Amino acid sequence: MTITARAVAKHDLKLICEHRERMFAESGRTREALRPMTVAFERWLSPLLDDGSYFGWMLEDAGVVIAGLGMMVIDWPPHPSHPADHRRAYILNVFVEPEHRRRGLARRLMALAEERARELGVGYALLHSTRQGRPLYESLGWGPTSEMAIRWE
Amino acid sequence: MTITARAVAKHDLKLICEHRERMFAESGRTREALRPMTVAFERWLSPLLDDGSYFGWMLEDAGVVIAGLGMMVIDWPPHPSHPADHRRAYILNVFVEPEHRRRGLARRLMALAEERARELGVGYALLHSTRQGRPLYESLGWGPTSEMAIRWE
Repeated sequence: MTITARAVAKHDLKLICEHRERMFAESGRTREALRPMTVAFERWLSPLLDDGSYFGWMLEDAGVVIAGLGMMVIDWPPHPSHPADHRRAYILNVFVEPEHRRRGLARRLMALAEERARELGVGYALLHSTRQGRPLYESLGWGPTSEMAIRWE
Repeated sequence: MTITARAVAKHDLKLICEHRERMFAESGRTREALRPMTVAFERWLSPLLDDGSYFGWMLEDAGVVIAGLGMMVIDWPPHPSHPADHRRAYILNVFVEPEHRRRGLARRLMALAEERARELGVGYALLHSTRQGRPLYESLGWGPTSEMAIRWE
């Protein structure tokens, strides 16, 4: 088996949305409940995928996508973790088809993300992890932050 | 004693930077080590304070600023926590002069932030808490997120 990586492209719009919805579905939400988010996400993503603000990679096995990862460079106030830079890398929509898990594919995608960040000179990166994903990220050196959130109803 | 709130203004640039530096200094960093961050932050903040992208409040006691809070509306992928919206509120640089702590001033600033978020129709908000700040935020209903970070050296 040869698994190849390619950059995400404009025609991946629907597939990225599907990966995102399935990723959240695995955290215990129904896909039906997630649909409104997915619709809004697709509308949000489309121009950013077109202009390259959202980028990333797909892994393919014999031409079939079996995993994907998205990435953005976000503007952020200079911070002790990146004192001279107002940019952070943000990684999202990491998804591996269930039958291809535990074979290092997410790790391979994360290596591509790190490589790109280094090329861009962005040294600090963030993601939000599912419970299932945390052990992988920890093994790569990622640690928790002090982020807190609230939903004002 | 009458403590009054006012919106942050362009002339608060240096004061906001000082609040930020002192806030981080209280997390165990020296002010000297923080200076490069503060310099970059000031350069980053200046245009955003001018155009109102960075906003917030100062609390004054007899015309002297004794506390401050900053806020931004950031663009973010629609997410299950805000499925139809691509915005999040971000709160930063919460600072209360040490001799005025434990009098509800941070709570008062947080109420102003929540009020503004509601006016803007932004229902989901984030911050990064210091250890000292966490109990207050928890008492207001804030909870931890799954954010993880890495610094690629």
